Amino acid sequence: MVVGADFLQLDPGAVPRGSLTSWLVDALRAAIADGRLAVGTRLPASRVLAADLAVSRGVVVAAYQVLFDDGLIRADGARGTTVAAAPPRAEVLPAGRADPWAGIDLSPGVPDLSAFPRAAWLRAERTVLASAAAADLGYGDPRGNAVLRHELAGWLGRVRGVRAGAEDLVVVAGVAQGLGLLAQLLAGARVGIEDPGSRGTREQLAYWGVEPVPVPVDADGLDVEALARSGVPVVLVTPAHHFPTGVVLAPHRRRALLEWAAGGGLVVEDDYDAEHRYDRAPVSALQGLAPDRVVHTGSVSKSLAPGLRLGWLVAPRALQPELARRKRMTDLGNAALPQLVLAQLIASGELERHLRRVRPRQRARRDAMLDALRRHLPDARVQGVAAGLHLLVTFPPGADDRELAERARDAGVLVQPLSWHRVGDGPPGLVLGYAAHSPDRIRDAVARLGASMRRPSGVRQPVVPKRNTDRER
Amino acid sequence: MVVGADFLQLDPGAVPRGSLTSWLVDALRAAIADGRLAVGTRLPASRVLAADLAVSRGVVVAAYQVLFDDGLIRADGARGTTVAAAPPRAEVLPAGRADPWAGIDLSPGVPDLSAFPRAAWLRAERTVLASAAAADLGYGDPRGNAVLRHELAGWLGRVRGVRAGAEDLVVVAGVAQGLGLLAQLLAGARVGIEDPGSRGTREQLAYWGVEPVPVPVDADGLDVEALARSGVPVVLVTPAHHFPTGVVLAPHRRRALLEWAAGGGLVVEDDYDAEHRYDRAPVSALQGLAPDRVVHTGSVSKSLAPGLRLGWLVAPRALQPELARRKRMTDLGNAALPQLVLAQLIASGELERHLRRVRPRQRARRDAMLDALRRHLPDARVQGVAAGLHLLVTFPPGADDRELAERARDAGVLVQPLSWHRVGDGPPGLVLGYAAHSPDRIRDAVARLGASMRRPSGVRQPVVPKRNTDRER
Repeated sequence: MVVGADFLQLDPGAVPRGSLTSWLVDALRAAIADGRLAVGTRLPASRVLAADLAVSRGVVVAAYQVLFDDGLIRADGARGTTVAAAPPRAEVLPAGRADPWAGIDLSPGVPDLSAFPRAAWLRAERTVLASAAAADLGYGDPRGNAVLRHELAGWLGRVRGVRAGAEDLVVVAGVAQGLGLLAQLLAGARVGIEDPGSRGTREQLAYWGVEPVPVPVDADGLDVEALARSGVPVVLVTPAHHFPTGVVLAPHRRRALLEWAAGGGLVVEDDYDAEHRYDRAPVSALQGLAPDRVVHTGSVSKSLAPGLRLGWLVAPRALQPELARRKRMTDLGNAALPQLVLAQLIASGELERHLRRVRPRQRARRDAMLDALRRHLPDARVQGVAAGLHLLVTFPPGADDRELAERARDAGVLVQPLSWHRVGDGPPGLVLGYAAHSPDRIRDAVARLGASMRRPSGVRQPVVPKRNTDRER
Repeated sequence: MVVGADFLQLDPGAVPRGSLTSWLVDALRAAIADGRLAVGTRLPASRVLAADLAVSRGVVVAAYQVLFDDGLIRADGARGTTVAAAPPRAEVLPAGRADPWAGIDLSPGVPDLSAFPRAAWLRAERTVLASAAAADLGYGDPRGNAVLRHELAGWLGRVRGVRAGAEDLVVVAGVAQGLGLLAQLLAGARVGIEDPGSRGTREQLAYWGVEPVPVPVDADGLDVEALARSGVPVVLVTPAHHFPTGVVLAPHRRRALLEWAAGGGLVVEDDYDAEHRYDRAPVSALQGLAPDRVVHTGSVSKSLAPGLRLGWLVAPRALQPELARRKRMTDLGNAALPQLVLAQLIASGELERHLRRVRPRQRARRDAMLDALRRHLPDARVQGVAAGLHLLVTFPPGADDRELAERARDAGVLVQPLSWHRVGDGPPGLVLGYAAHSPDRIRDAVARLGASMRRPSGVRQPVVPKRNTDRER
């Protein structure tokens, strides 16, 4: 529990000649009082502390006895002697800790975390710990572990049509970091973003000094003519599956975008949840068609779990040295063990098996949501059902989707209004994630959603107290 | 390995009426030719690919047969059918991959990685995977997992005298990221740095827009009077164990520094390898004496492994919101599983047991280096032996320590010249890390070092080809 004489920095040299016991009692009492020794903390074994302080064991035993009589410490069975006095709880738990949402959270972008392949991950970790060289645990290549980059290059080539060698790839802490590093390179530049498009991404680009320029998205995806008119040198797109509409960039638009890039533009391709695909042919990555004009970024956040913070950035050669430098200056590179574990999951075929396993589950959840929408929101127009982890419902102009989201929250269902993710005008809508919940929960959520929308404006039945909700968001 | 019909993005709709077999053969041959299918890649089972493409299994079997006859794929026993043709190796392996140094690397800052507690780590990971909630794998608090922050706050309080609740602490990807986030906050400001001091840290601060102002370090540590004269508002110090001299900030200097801080200065305390301590009483963190004036940062890079990229940043309340925001915008927070594993290692006492185990090993290595230095470099002055993972030898003025390091490298021993880590003038010296090597290797290295220095200037006996060395550094 504690490191010998580092324990409270008790200095054997500071041990007074006189009453060793009272000196030690005072030191421990002070530490318990000011919270340095939290309740439940195990104290060192008397033998250990006595040796570290070069005092007789009897001194420590006597000191512990005094504190025991004061009720400050207690014998805690196998755990040994622990602190019994409680410091104020507020000091121990972080402020604003995320408690689970009391209702049903249909926010998009989170996969079915209950399906995370824990056994396969542990097996892979065992293999890695049994085989990794000591040097693999040291300061590594900031661009990422060579073995993972090799596996990722192969995987992305086979599954996404990405044309890259391991040397073209930087391992990053998710797409968020990938886009952040890129934005630092582009700081000061005007960068086209899809409108509608991810609000989080827009805010992140702006944070790093990029000027986001909205470019309209229609039923065929990004309006490339509007992009050309905007005069921006760079554009960020989600061609395989647009967020939040789910539109796939149409073939003629793909061609037009590649022509725009050939004319000097740089395309940043966020390969947003491309691995979740139900009723349509796969769409390969743009990067494979123009490796010199496209930066490709993706992650395992949607295929495994966002909490892994593992992704990749494939950039044209000209950008690679500066991206590697920024990654180094940011964190010296991703953590070694998770990189090696992911490499093992790819090489062993476990990642592929996992994706095969979850796909029918996700599809069933999507179908449950579609059924429920037909029943409970018959007037809503549903989009983006062919792939991904969420869908979009839009309504006739006039409705305020923020108010609809408010009503839904009051009914215990958390949804995102489409207008959050849009700069320009457009129809009201709601973004509904279905991947994280069972079909029954989804039916329940959509039923509540429908009821909340049919209720006359202004009438609310708070299921979750509003203040409480605000605190948790 | 591959995801069904995502495999090469083969589109069942694109399957021609005519010869299905030759269409599939062409598609696979192209993929092998351009490297999308690297050598050794497993092909999908014919049953699987046939189902995904909605063609008869015979078509796939026939196509595989053609490629087999061409020698492009082969039957690979239990692994199934794999690609036999080799793409150019250069495309597969990353450039500048770090091969092990041919000689003995005495660069400082790397612990004994062969002592990494692999079994304990795996046990903790099993516990975590068995008990973690699904939500723990989602997007978490960017400041870090609440359980780890709670454990770290308790640990730092007990072992380092840090006064902080879990809410005062941000989990970061090592001290490098902690200082980087802080430097972003301080961009444009003049920040005092120790001279000598870590060259890497100096370069990182400058990278993020801070102006490093050298402040001299003498036998008592940082010269606080010089600090006051410099007029900088912030200073970065390593009070527990100065890098590279190993000096401990003297009590009167600690008092003076805290007075300087009380007068409005901000102290950034890099708790550099404070856990490695051999012949001296522990020194508690400055932060515990002035939590409102000191930012404390540390990591497990020296106690466990740098490859974990796990550290902490404890800042005064006023700085916490902006630091948390920057951490969020940088990577949305550290990876979840390693955080939970570290929390488990602290709570179970494994981290303490590990430190107790390695300390005598490190001490034996230090003693071996001291013996060898007395024998082979009798004129060298040795400093910083009471703690840490390295020591410093200095020489009478006149010698060029960069040339000495060059000679050592030619003799197969990698050391850092003191002048690398210094802005102003001072005696020549060499920084010698001892933690990463066995006593025998250390004696060998110091013997070679001594011989290389006694050799008349200009005369070299290259042990490791120079170009080769340069490539590997």
